[in-house]
Amino acid sequence: MLTIHHLGKSQSERIVWLCEELGIPYRLEHHKRDAVTNLSPPELRAMHPMGTAPVITDGDVVLAESGAIVDYIIGRHGGGRLARGPADPDFADYLYWYHFANASLQPVMGRNMLLHRLKLPADNPVLVSTLERLDRALSWVDERLAANAFLAGSELTAADIMAVFSLTTMRYFMPVDFGPYPHILAYLRRIAGREAYQRAMQKGDPGMALLLT
Amino acid sequence: MLTIHHLGKSQSERIVWLCEELGIPYRLEHHKRDAVTNLSPPELRAMHPMGTAPVITDGDVVLAESGAIVDYIIGRHGGGRLARGPADPDFADYLYWYHFANASLQPVMGRNMLLHRLKLPADNPVLVSTLERLDRALSWVDERLAANAFLAGSELTAADIMAVFSLTTMRYFMPVDFGPYPHILAYLRRIAGREAYQRAMQKGDPGMALLLT
Repeated sequence: MLTIHHLGKSQSERIVWLCEELGIPYRLEHHKRDAVTNLSPPELRAMHPMGTAPVITDGDVVLAESGAIVDYIIGRHGGGRLARGPADPDFADYLYWYHFANASLQPVMGRNMLLHRLKLPADNPVLVSTLERLDRALSWVDERLAANAFLAGSELTAADIMAVFSLTTMRYFMPVDFGPYPHILAYLRRIAGREAYQRAMQKGDPGMALLLT
Repeated sequence: MLTIHHLGKSQSERIVWLCEELGIPYRLEHHKRDAVTNLSPPELRAMHPMGTAPVITDGDVVLAESGAIVDYIIGRHGGGRLARGPADPDFADYLYWYHFANASLQPVMGRNMLLHRLKLPADNPVLVSTLERLDRALSWVDERLAANAFLAGSELTAADIMAVFSLTTMRYFMPVDFGPYPHILAYLRRIAGREAYQRAMQKGDPGMALLLT
């Protein structure tokens, strides 16, 4: 059976949510961040050289990297559901937002988290340009969600499952005021109303406050 | 016809290389970085809200984000060549390295580039941990390439096309000594020997020295 190695407060919440949306059975193995460093614990780091969450096991397969795991589960166990194929009119939009999540949005959040830790003066040019890039990314997501209920179009897809972590739980690590992005906030209310999302967060991170506002 | 908006010295070299490997006809539109800021020029920024390269146009489709463009071209025009599907034994490895390129390797190069610009003291803990992450990523690529000719296995796939920019041209922006990673260097020699790669770099960035050693 598919096993999800779930690190609390981490990108692995995506995989739990995906399996709940698809109705795929899975075993959930909980791991907690190191109390001092706030990083992955040694047993999770031992599973994969990069030492990051999520990691899944499926028979002989040990797989890390959110985007790879989501594509893998949809391809091997989900019959292509929640993805969009080459014949679909939403194909390009689906691919764009799917890859945008962890190749543009999450990295710009991560860069800001790093600079945040350095406590640079507010006028430092590297900080100023990085904050400008963050606003550009969030404004672009906001604009997209002003015209579409979900990132790839009118229905939830794996693109949303990839993006929501960076818009919610990631804000424990890099606080962002979403006041300027009302369409993102309305979108997060739609996500919060989904039973599969509620079940996933309850199973993966019981008791964790969800940063949906 | 497919048009590649190619920004010199940028991630868009991947798309030119992909089309050369697949033998797909394309029109190449050259753009140059702003001489002062070294960023995308205004005409490229006007094409897409994120203002980054690559961007392609294909009929009504205007698409950015390397990972999305590569998947799109392979799906719509390449008949799935250079990718691996769910029935393929290399499916999980292919997906891993495909996503690793722009969701782990390129972001850790980018974080180091940012810190490099800040000229922090060598013992700054944020710098130390970020350099450690970079070494972990490159050591992991090196280990993989010690046992496999290409990232997904014995043949070149789109995972290589995604990763090679971060191991070559990206070093114009974030210099890295590859001495400790001999299998990456041997891999770059294999890549450099490919006629499609040579044609792509010649067409996209004529005269640019290739950082293959």
